[in-house]
Amino acid sequence: MTTRLKSFVDIAPDSDFPLENLPYGIFSDKQNAQPRAGVALGEWVVDLAALEAKGYLKLEQGQQFFNQPTLNAFIESGKANWSKVRAELQTLLSADHAELRDNQELRDQVFFNQSDVKMHLPVHIPSYTDFYSSKEHATNVGCMFRDPKNALLANWSELPVGYNGRASSVIVSGTEIVRPSGQIKLPDSDRPVFSACRKLDFELETGFIIGKPNHLGKPIAIENAWDHIFGMVLFNDWSARDLQQWEYVPLGPFNAKTFASSISPWVVTLEALEPFKTSSPVQDPKPLTYLREDNSSNSYDINLSVEIQTENSDQADVICKTNFKYMYWSMAQQLAHHTIAGCNVQVGDLMGSGTISGSTPDSYGSLLEITWNATKPLTLSNGEQRTFIQDGDTVIMKGHCEKDGLRIGFGAVSGKILPALDFGFSE
Amino acid sequence: MTTRLKSFVDIAPDSDFPLENLPYGIFSDKQNAQPRAGVALGEWVVDLAALEAKGYLKLEQGQQFFNQPTLNAFIESGKANWSKVRAELQTLLSADHAELRDNQELRDQVFFNQSDVKMHLPVHIPSYTDFYSSKEHATNVGCMFRDPKNALLANWSELPVGYNGRASSVIVSGTEIVRPSGQIKLPDSDRPVFSACRKLDFELETGFIIGKPNHLGKPIAIENAWDHIFGMVLFNDWSARDLQQWEYVPLGPFNAKTFASSISPWVVTLEALEPFKTSSPVQDPKPLTYLREDNSSNSYDINLSVEIQTENSDQADVICKTNFKYMYWSMAQQLAHHTIAGCNVQVGDLMGSGTISGSTPDSYGSLLEITWNATKPLTLSNGEQRTFIQDGDTVIMKGHCEKDGLRIGFGAVSGKILPALDFGFSE
Repeated sequence: MTTRLKSFVDIAPDSDFPLENLPYGIFSDKQNAQPRAGVALGEWVVDLAALEAKGYLKLEQGQQFFNQPTLNAFIESGKANWSKVRAELQTLLSADHAELRDNQELRDQVFFNQSDVKMHLPVHIPSYTDFYSSKEHATNVGCMFRDPKNALLANWSELPVGYNGRASSVIVSGTEIVRPSGQIKLPDSDRPVFSACRKLDFELETGFIIGKPNHLGKPIAIENAWDHIFGMVLFNDWSARDLQQWEYVPLGPFNAKTFASSISPWVVTLEALEPFKTSSPVQDPKPLTYLREDNSSNSYDINLSVEIQTENSDQADVICKTNFKYMYWSMAQQLAHHTIAGCNVQVGDLMGSGTISGSTPDSYGSLLEITWNATKPLTLSNGEQRTFIQDGDTVIMKGHCEKDGLRIGFGAVSGKILPALDFGFSE
Repeated sequence: MTTRLKSFVDIAPDSDFPLENLPYGIFSDKQNAQPRAGVALGEWVVDLAALEAKGYLKLEQGQQFFNQPTLNAFIESGKANWSKVRAELQTLLSADHAELRDNQELRDQVFFNQSDVKMHLPVHIPSYTDFYSSKEHATNVGCMFRDPKNALLANWSELPVGYNGRASSVIVSGTEIVRPSGQIKLPDSDRPVFSACRKLDFELETGFIIGKPNHLGKPIAIENAWDHIFGMVLFNDWSARDLQQWEYVPLGPFNAKTFASSISPWVVTLEALEPFKTSSPVQDPKPLTYLREDNSSNSYDINLSVEIQTENSDQADVICKTNFKYMYWSMAQQLAHHTIAGCNVQVGDLMGSGTISGSTPDSYGSLLEITWNATKPLTLSNGEQRTFIQDGDTVIMKGHCEKDGLRIGFGAVSGKILPALDFGFSE
């Protein structure tokens, strides 16, 4: 069992945010509405902008990384600096270190209770890409909409299928979402109708944040790909299934996904996740050279769950438990593929995993799969039934790693669905 | 015939850039490497940053729109200001106006010959979307890859099909492009091979630039859509057809399009295009309410052409002549559809038209169509043949409007293809 780090603040054993985690986010508080960087520690946010201003983080002279409305400047400072800041914070916040521990006035200035702050989008996201890398999810979707005997398309096993998402509609956890409207095609009519989405769904995903760019025309080799990743978030890729089914041929999903995509406010660094490295599934066929990687430690053992809370219920029901380690294609493979033709990625880019499903219905990462396209309604603990998401429902996704007494968590990403707009026309 | 404006500088009758045009771009010169805004006038670039600094453009006090590396700040200033600046420039540059005309020292400071400057990407593009709005193009592709009897998919006639593109790889005209590599699936083999693209193509498109944003969850009504458009550019959506054919199911094109997309350096404003408004094709079926618009003046009569120049030729061959007015879906319809489910657009967003093909082979906007997927090779004037683009080829697209003696042009977007990288492996 690894020796645990100990902070001078009390941290509950089941907290997502021990001193070994220190995820980065952007927050503001009632006294200071200026969004700035912080790290989560137990129930607290530690104000990095204030620590930086007071000279407690020994950064390159003159550089201001944390008094910023996004993490991008800090991320751009590079991997060596990420490690340096992490180590400095672990010292500064340690129970053995008197500097901050014994300075109550300073502690009052830099510690904020998480329940008192507002969290903002942590990163300016220049571009967002979504992959489709869970074999179980792709198989389930293929069974429902194509041929159960050939559920996976031929390319799926050869490359991490992905598509360009819409970066402008990525929002932070807690932002409410208006039910989208658009064209849906009903089976009994020749033409589409204009309607509020009737098959609104979540997709349980994780995302990773690009930490180091490449130049256009210069692919990232798979052996270097991990160095381009800063950290991970939880990600709910909200999906309007009925809009999607009508619009998606031949160029892929568009309005069905561009109305909102929610991310968790805390970015967990790859350094914090290091103890939870694990293998990914054996790949058959063996990928082409540019995607080839040792699969023994190219994934992470991250427990993921989805809860749904309706307006008529005073508690959330867990409706899915799955794990990041089921992902067939690794993040390094996704990034190597993304850039192989020359595409450039930029600091802050968000790369979604695709829906992460396990092999059993209680581990499916979307309502589409859980209710098998509304054919098997889900009964909640208060007796309500769901096929897809109803107005007023809040969807909450959580994630954490746990091993040898160490828990590293992501917190949660949540979002509540508001009723559709009234357009005054219905065809 | 409209009375023509006359500038104090000589402008050739066939120039794309009379005083009625004044397209905006970003340039730098040998003395001043700082990218800044200018307008094109005849053979000249007029330095707007210098005019602004010297107080010649009477803008809101303290605001600096033009001493910037992109046009975004100016575009954000709003439609009323676009008109004000245009009117001020047309006065300041007029033959009747002495202020600049008679001040040779100032003229030497603000006029740069276009052949002496470097043009930069005119706009920071937060997101890029590509549509598929030419019926002729969609029909041609459907005939080749699906069923000639049902070439158009059912959704095509009901909505402007579009997909999210990759903004990071949008480059300015003149930037050279490395031939992309990736997975291609050959007909005689079970598995894909790793290869340089063998079916590299252009796509003749125009693009429009968003001038006014909307909020997430608040669609842009079609009657307001035109107010959200700043101007138009020429756009070459380079495409790797063999990569695309293997990767694009079910989520759309990805690496086949994200290696480079070239835009012209000059953004022509909708105000300059106003005299060339024309009707778009009658739509059958009549679109749903949110897409319904009078078609009598919702398009523009813009002549478009494609030229190809090989390394062995000292002249370019025109291989396509078409017109923007063939587009089935209007820019307002594209924007209304893009936002109907709640997606937010941002100032500077680029919206590609999709390949613009006419009804005859000499008006097809891609080599895929012109050579009918390599079955009808094209013979150039020097005897060389082309099915797709070869290394060293330069593709040049041009566009202009002409009516009653007034010519408003876009200049050109060009790009040369460099050989693929050597990866040292081939499977």
